[in-house]
Amino acid sequence: CRRLAAGGRTSDDLLDLCRGRGFLLGEEMSPASVLGGRHSLGPLGAQMKRNLVKEWWDAMLLHQEQVLPIDSLCHLPGASNSSPRPPLKTLPQWHLDRLQNQGPTQEELETMATLRQDLLYGALYCYPSCLELLNRKLPFGIAEVGRCFQPITGEENPDTCRVSERTAASLVWFSSAKTCAQWRDFWLRQRLLWWRKFAQVPSRFSSGDHQDEEGRKLTIIQYDFPWGKEPIERLGSMDDSALTQMHHVPAAPLHGRDGRKSVLPHVVWVSSEVERGLLAYLSDSLQVTENTAPRGKEQRRAVLKIHPSLAPIKVAVDMGKGPAVDLRLVCQGLCSELQGRGISIWPGYLETLQTPMEQLFTRYDEMGVLFTALVSDVTLQSGLLHLRSRDTTIRETMHISKLSAFLMQHLTAAAKL
Amino acid sequence: CRRLAAGGRTSDDLLDLCRGRGFLLGEEMSPASVLGGRHSLGPLGAQMKRNLVKEWWDAMLLHQEQVLPIDSLCHLPGASNSSPRPPLKTLPQWHLDRLQNQGPTQEELETMATLRQDLLYGALYCYPSCLELLNRKLPFGIAEVGRCFQPITGEENPDTCRVSERTAASLVWFSSAKTCAQWRDFWLRQRLLWWRKFAQVPSRFSSGDHQDEEGRKLTIIQYDFPWGKEPIERLGSMDDSALTQMHHVPAAPLHGRDGRKSVLPHVVWVSSEVERGLLAYLSDSLQVTENTAPRGKEQRRAVLKIHPSLAPIKVAVDMGKGPAVDLRLVCQGLCSELQGRGISIWPGYLETLQTPMEQLFTRYDEMGVLFTALVSDVTLQSGLLHLRSRDTTIRETMHISKLSAFLMQHLTAAAKL
Repeated sequence: CRRLAAGGRTSDDLLDLCRGRGFLLGEEMSPASVLGGRHSLGPLGAQMKRNLVKEWWDAMLLHQEQVLPIDSLCHLPGASNSSPRPPLKTLPQWHLDRLQNQGPTQEELETMATLRQDLLYGALYCYPSCLELLNRKLPFGIAEVGRCFQPITGEENPDTCRVSERTAASLVWFSSAKTCAQWRDFWLRQRLLWWRKFAQVPSRFSSGDHQDEEGRKLTIIQYDFPWGKEPIERLGSMDDSALTQMHHVPAAPLHGRDGRKSVLPHVVWVSSEVERGLLAYLSDSLQVTENTAPRGKEQRRAVLKIHPSLAPIKVAVDMGKGPAVDLRLVCQGLCSELQGRGISIWPGYLETLQTPMEQLFTRYDEMGVLFTALVSDVTLQSGLLHLRSRDTTIRETMHISKLSAFLMQHLTAAAKL
Repeated sequence: CRRLAAGGRTSDDLLDLCRGRGFLLGEEMSPASVLGGRHSLGPLGAQMKRNLVKEWWDAMLLHQEQVLPIDSLCHLPGASNSSPRPPLKTLPQWHLDRLQNQGPTQEELETMATLRQDLLYGALYCYPSCLELLNRKLPFGIAEVGRCFQPITGEENPDTCRVSERTAASLVWFSSAKTCAQWRDFWLRQRLLWWRKFAQVPSRFSSGDHQDEEGRKLTIIQYDFPWGKEPIERLGSMDDSALTQMHHVPAAPLHGRDGRKSVLPHVVWVSSEVERGLLAYLSDSLQVTENTAPRGKEQRRAVLKIHPSLAPIKVAVDMGKGPAVDLRLVCQGLCSELQGRGISIWPGYLETLQTPMEQLFTRYDEMGVLFTALVSDVTLQSGLLHLRSRDTTIRETMHISKLSAFLMQHLTAAAKL
């Protein structure tokens, strides 16, 4: 309730909007179910996730040192040994049918495929190949974005086996022991800056030190949701046993070159939760205001002021008054041009049911659409269209030939801030 | 052996290169293990996959009709009912431990989470939300890229439960019954053109009609690997029962608007296998030639002439003779500029071990690197650098300030062909 006053963000507002506009799908949505990874992403959520993941990759690969992407299997042999949490096993139905009268033996349990719970193991597994590709030069990082799985415990009914899913974006950084602490600080600073870069209220992203289950120091980046702070990224470091324990080989082939020295690297591991990050930005960008409409009706206006780089749709193209066939052709040409420049559009002109303009803007604001371009008979005569901004709600007049350059400039400027 | 003569592509050449240069990782690599999805992707493979998936999305979202992205869970409730193949169950270790003395009951089996084998179910599941977002207007498509899982059967040892993984890129297209066949043809044509667009030898991508396990007509796009033709994409269609069977609701809420009519849509489903596609392009782009070197030594030269849009690395930046500290600064500036324009680079200048130039080019050719930029003391004096092309092996001299524009032009031109 305090939070309602302080900016109008409530859990209900957020979840209603996420469900109503198809960011998240599924029934019985609650903070717990959303954070627990029990919902699929609808069209807007999926597109926004793609944008977020692209930004993550850009930030990772843009460093002057080497960061190598990998794409590891969700079932890696031996993965079960590395995780402190009880593993998730995958097995075919026919195997379970065979177990009908007799449960699995310990031996069978061990040969069953194990689903990954995080991306650390995959990076350690791929380390020797990456080291070779780089002529053994340290430091370097291994980056991956992928789905991870965890059993859901503490359910009402322990007999139903639910699985929670999340997309992790993980960087595993290998460096000499003596630079490891410096790199840890470097990556924490980078990551916090990165989260704040796209935020309306950067201070809602903060970091804090914690201890993991085994008493190791862990730094957490968290976001202040309407229902409280939740971790969205974890950062930790490990000594050289991380590599030796996993590869069971003499240490020498794992050694890299640090200047002239040959060293077994230490590890900094930074792992963020993409869907939680998505939800953090949705929460961050949601602004609910109470307006008194012209005719005295109270109106609540919800806008998702999503950062231009993350907004799933940059511009909606709609038709106003005028000859429908001609206008449709103009809209189609405009959309092709914008898409050709990589600007994601919403082809509202395809809609054959008339919607009042204000209702359209309300819908687009709730979808976080940055701009709405309105093509009408004026456009056919003079080439001018109306461009309405989500953030200012002002409508400008602009020549159709200038739109794509204007949008590119707007997006580039926003990305650089 | 016939194939060796006809272009020098052999299975061994292909797999050796894939493993040697870190496109694919893991031991015991064979056509079967690679096609069976039992290998993680190394840095070059992962980057190339990202490029391929981006091209797929661009092709999907660039259509004038609506294609909506989604991101569904790997474990969707009810998914087990839809698949004709025996499902893969996921369950926590502690649950299996409880089964130690007594196997699972039929009831327990049904409540166990099921891993998806394809992306069709997710799209059908998300259909109502997408339909609503589009004001019920048909036709439209639901697109998704995601990991899918299948049990590996026919193993030597039936007690080890192996799981095969692949990334599917799926479009599920909803249209009225009367336009369904037309759309099927449209998408088949589009998809075949798309695969051929990036190929050195487009005719190695072909399509053919097949029947699936249940006797339905299925069109397959296949690639002619050195070991024979293998499917890389499947296209099929389904009538309106696809939606009604899955949603168990009266048909009305599933109806869309086709012009003025309200119809229950039919479905066209196009699903490609990303890692197989990747392997197809690697096979397609591999050229092995036997050279007689100047000193009479026979040399085999392998080049991956990967399409510029897909090549994981566009340009390697290396240092020649000159003061190392100054050259490194120049290289760093050049790399930042290129990366800032979205051109993926290989910072070869970070390498501190001297490698002879020819050996460097051999390595880069095998990595499919499009260009190598060589910065040397000449660059410090005059701004000129050497630019060596993978495809022509010619070295040009170019002013450093012109490089990024030249590369952008080259990449844009190649993308448009």
